Amino acid sequence: MAIRTASARWEGTLTEGAGTMRTGKGGLEAPFSFKSRFQEGEGSNPEELIGAAHAGCFSMALSKGLQDAGFPPNSVDTTASVHLDTVDGKPTVTTIDLDTRVSAPG
Amino acid sequence: MAIRTASARWEGTLTEGAGTMRTGKGGLEAPFSFKSRFQEGEGSNPEELIGAAHAGCFSMALSKGLQDAGFPPNSVDTTASVHLDTVDGKPTVTTIDLDTRVSAPG
Repeated sequence: MAIRTASARWEGTLTEGAGTMRTGKGGLEAPFSFKSRFQEGEGSNPEELIGAAHAGCFSMALSKGLQDAGFPPNSVDTTASVHLDTVDGKPTVTTIDLDTRVSAPG
Repeated sequence: MAIRTASARWEGTLTEGAGTMRTGKGGLEAPFSFKSRFQEGEGSNPEELIGAAHAGCFSMALSKGLQDAGFPPNSVDTTASVHLDTVDGKPTVTTIDLDTRVSAPG
């Protein structure tokens, strides 16, 4: 159906290095570091990209579901909260909460 | 450990509407549409965000693994190819291929 590409480059050590994630079609650049991933430093991280993808897919699918049910929505807004916890000593995404607001006539 | 947020908004119908995915920390905006997701139209899609996240996480982890093994790398470059296929009538990510190049002394 389709093959989508993206890439990432990491330079240097885990804690002092830095990297960039890039998407192929959208042309986005997301700088990231140990601090932006595991602490509160500036920059992006893989977890928020997964959250954006989850929120995007869900919003699009819910729009179709509402349309099929006879309530075509004006808008679907979804916020994803991605929980990164330590499980067996490893950083692990344990939960993604989705909070959705829909504006639909009828 | 951390909660990362992201969001998405979809407006209009599945095939004629359009949306935007946004990340909380990185401040990225990724416009997407039916055409950019399932065809070859301009814009982003959730699948390439997942690919970027996968490539980013893998590059960072491989850097740590090489460092722990005594070969701290100068750089780790990873390209993700995300295969979106139809399974039981539904668009499904069936495979993500990672291609990695490492520059490490020693």
